[in-house]
Amino acid sequence: MKNNVNRELPTDLMEQLDYQAYQTTEIGDPQIQRVAPKVHVSMGDQKVVQSIQDVVSKTVKDGMTISFHHHFRNGDYVFNQVMRVIIDSGIQDLTLAPSSLTGVMNDIVIEAIKKGTITNITSSGMRGSLGDFISHGGMKNPVIFRSHGNRARAIESGEIKIDVAFLGVPNADRLGNANGMAGKAVFGSLGYALMDAQYADQVVLLTDNLVDYPNTPASIKQTQVDYVVQVDEVGDPDKIGSGATRFTKDPKELKIASLVNAVITHSPYFKQGFSFQTGSGGAALAVTRYLRQAMLDAKITASFALGGITKPTTDLLEEGLVDRIMDVQDFDKGAAESMQSNPKQQEIDASWYADPDNKGAMVDQLDVAILSALEIDTKFNVNVMSGSDGVIRGAIGGHQDAAGAKLTIICAPLVRGRIATIVPDVTTVVTPGDSIDVVVTEYGIAINPKREDLIAALSKIPGVPVLPIDQLQALAEKKVGQPTPLQFTDRTVALIEYRDGTLIDQIKEVKD
Amino acid sequence: MKNNVNRELPTDLMEQLDYQAYQTTEIGDPQIQRVAPKVHVSMGDQKVVQSIQDVVSKTVKDGMTISFHHHFRNGDYVFNQVMRVIIDSGIQDLTLAPSSLTGVMNDIVIEAIKKGTITNITSSGMRGSLGDFISHGGMKNPVIFRSHGNRARAIESGEIKIDVAFLGVPNADRLGNANGMAGKAVFGSLGYALMDAQYADQVVLLTDNLVDYPNTPASIKQTQVDYVVQVDEVGDPDKIGSGATRFTKDPKELKIASLVNAVITHSPYFKQGFSFQTGSGGAALAVTRYLRQAMLDAKITASFALGGITKPTTDLLEEGLVDRIMDVQDFDKGAAESMQSNPKQQEIDASWYADPDNKGAMVDQLDVAILSALEIDTKFNVNVMSGSDGVIRGAIGGHQDAAGAKLTIICAPLVRGRIATIVPDVTTVVTPGDSIDVVVTEYGIAINPKREDLIAALSKIPGVPVLPIDQLQALAEKKVGQPTPLQFTDRTVALIEYRDGTLIDQIKEVKD
Repeated sequence: MKNNVNRELPTDLMEQLDYQAYQTTEIGDPQIQRVAPKVHVSMGDQKVVQSIQDVVSKTVKDGMTISFHHHFRNGDYVFNQVMRVIIDSGIQDLTLAPSSLTGVMNDIVIEAIKKGTITNITSSGMRGSLGDFISHGGMKNPVIFRSHGNRARAIESGEIKIDVAFLGVPNADRLGNANGMAGKAVFGSLGYALMDAQYADQVVLLTDNLVDYPNTPASIKQTQVDYVVQVDEVGDPDKIGSGATRFTKDPKELKIASLVNAVITHSPYFKQGFSFQTGSGGAALAVTRYLRQAMLDAKITASFALGGITKPTTDLLEEGLVDRIMDVQDFDKGAAESMQSNPKQQEIDASWYADPDNKGAMVDQLDVAILSALEIDTKFNVNVMSGSDGVIRGAIGGHQDAAGAKLTIICAPLVRGRIATIVPDVTTVVTPGDSIDVVVTEYGIAINPKREDLIAALSKIPGVPVLPIDQLQALAEKKVGQPTPLQFTDRTVALIEYRDGTLIDQIKEVKD
Repeated sequence: MKNNVNRELPTDLMEQLDYQAYQTTEIGDPQIQRVAPKVHVSMGDQKVVQSIQDVVSKTVKDGMTISFHHHFRNGDYVFNQVMRVIIDSGIQDLTLAPSSLTGVMNDIVIEAIKKGTITNITSSGMRGSLGDFISHGGMKNPVIFRSHGNRARAIESGEIKIDVAFLGVPNADRLGNANGMAGKAVFGSLGYALMDAQYADQVVLLTDNLVDYPNTPASIKQTQVDYVVQVDEVGDPDKIGSGATRFTKDPKELKIASLVNAVITHSPYFKQGFSFQTGSGGAALAVTRYLRQAMLDAKITASFALGGITKPTTDLLEEGLVDRIMDVQDFDKGAAESMQSNPKQQEIDASWYADPDNKGAMVDQLDVAILSALEIDTKFNVNVMSGSDGVIRGAIGGHQDAAGAKLTIICAPLVRGRIATIVPDVTTVVTPGDSIDVVVTEYGIAINPKREDLIAALSKIPGVPVLPIDQLQALAEKKVGQPTPLQFTDRTVALIEYRDGTLIDQIKEVKD
């Protein structure tokens, strides 16, 4: 069967895993019965355990679902330490359900799959050797990819039931009050981890900084935590930053950023009290700088900035150009430090950020979202998950979620090296074209034909060529030629959920 | 049948309402399956409704459970406005489940009972005309009294299932982000209301101060709120303060306070990093002042102060004598303002404060709790619920909860007017004697014989007479004589739960 973005879906797996096919970006107004954890009652005085071995033997059993957060990104020391113990203890058949997987986790995840420790994975994404391993059929069961908002939704509805969450924190007291703002390995908002803390049956904190009781502000609360383990180091402060937060000097990125800025400022949404999510990456950061000047020139301020936060955004808060930052994740130390000192930078959990089955997520209040892409096709569908070789090398992140903004802009170069970004059909549909409004490349912009209002507003901006997306695609193809079609086997190695939990695409095993 | 504090329990009601008899103050380590609300999904853009009439007609149906918080205390304008509409709309058979009931709510609750609008009540307490009405058999079903921690427990376990919560706030944005710290009618911590916001199926905010979106800090979050109603005024700022926060000049209160201080400072718990809950009321505030001097003299500081917070306690925070305030409720404007400005004053919900079925509530970490009493008996059982005439005129509040402290001190005058405070048997057992350690009166102190360690530590303090509790009781009886035994009918008008949800006592209809 095919779904509404024309993707062939695996009917056997859909039946087995109880999936509906993706139909629409509209969420509607269903009533959802939330779930809640089973609480092991204690007075709280016996939470500190001496080693990871101790805590794993107290908590993890065959067949369970375990989780981690990825706020330490490539500076993470927690995941490897815990997985080492779990693998060595011979535990089998776990479902791994982290908020995402970063490169430093790849080797041990592959080992755990090979040894039968891990037999299922759900994640926002994966890259490098692990993506390669999965794409080449390394795991029997398909990986399930979910956006950050969809992970929150699935946890809240019980589709992901976490038995044990292992959460690394730069500070905690003996009962488990903790935050991400103080200590050696700070990362700021605990946004993704707050879901695990609230919904897992058992919550284990790992910290290198056991502080006096009671520790405040408490992002994670003692009422949520079963065990606290002291370890030597939870992370490498120098590798926590996403590394992509400096201002770009790349002329192509600057060109794209200036076009994005022109699109925003000429749109009907650029007015007093507007809101935006930019994200990290060279072009996005440059957009933030252009937007700053545009706001100064127009004498307007933004009501809030959302998403993964960087120092350029917290600078706007300091300057009074942004009234609030709603912070689910920080991409650099400056942004993390700002959350500690500025009460207008509100820590939010992944549900508040983006769960579509909510009473109003932040993303649904967004005016402008600037997102990236590996591929965009002529139906405006976006792929942020698989490379042009068909191999998994990305993450949904908040992509599907933020695309619910009133003005969703995809910015990407027309081609990357010898690979087209604008293609006839994306390899993997992650975000449906229905939620994409404008595509910005260094050669000009394409507006989704469904947005007649935007075509009217944006078609006569000096210096901003507006092209049909087919024409951008043809231009890209002219530059790099037509690629050889990818070869896949019949085996499904990954399923891509839409933010509402329906199935939007699958990824098949790469045929070498 | 009789329970472990020798109270006759109504077996028919126990069977009907599925009650166990109170047995022990020990909570043990059960596993509790928590419950979760049913969420009505929306994008959040249609939450603001024009009137209380509108929102009541959208939400309340016959037979539902509705709730309110009592943070406005006697300055509350919300309860009456909402109940007026509910009564006038003819809705029947509601269960009223507020965090507590204050005097300004009495008249309309009585009217609602008489008209069949309200047929069940659970509350922390009631006073004045409502207590009188219930005690004289004004409602068919018995009222259920629960402590603040027990209410949180009952909500989290599903024993109280709130269909609609009506929560007044001094500020909110159009999606329902709100706190108790800014606006005209501020009360500080939203501690009790946070339970309703998290667990009710439908959450209605009422505010006189609709602020720009997004409103932070958000104690109540947009993910929890269904409707926002703007009203003229939510409360009278002058009547929100408990009114009992000035420093006493009553020599009897000062004497009791100085004895309480002597007990604390000579106990093994008075050391660097100790913790305490004092509460409001003349003697309690005087204790805070004595404790300040004692900490300065001993060159020690407290790790945290807990409970209903007053300015004298936040002054200790400013002075550095207390390292953290864990704040479930503020009793005056000074304390409310301090929470806004001092990040070391952490807002906590009622579960974190005191739910015994938790992973460690704050009360279970308390070293010293100072509590009051209407009556204490020779088994150290405490009554804070019914007067010497048998009529309901009190509230459990956090009494049973904080009594779990390592050193629980009851301070009370030996007699009040012509009424003895220390009695052979309390009219109503609210807090079991097993959790009470020391009773302090102006004539001396009595130590629970089970606390041999405290008898050793406290028996030779200069100027602090230690008497057997029987002797204090005899002294009281000598002063005021033996009262005529109370006359009750066979009908049960109220049930008193212990903090764990078992039945500790009942209140019978008063025979005039």
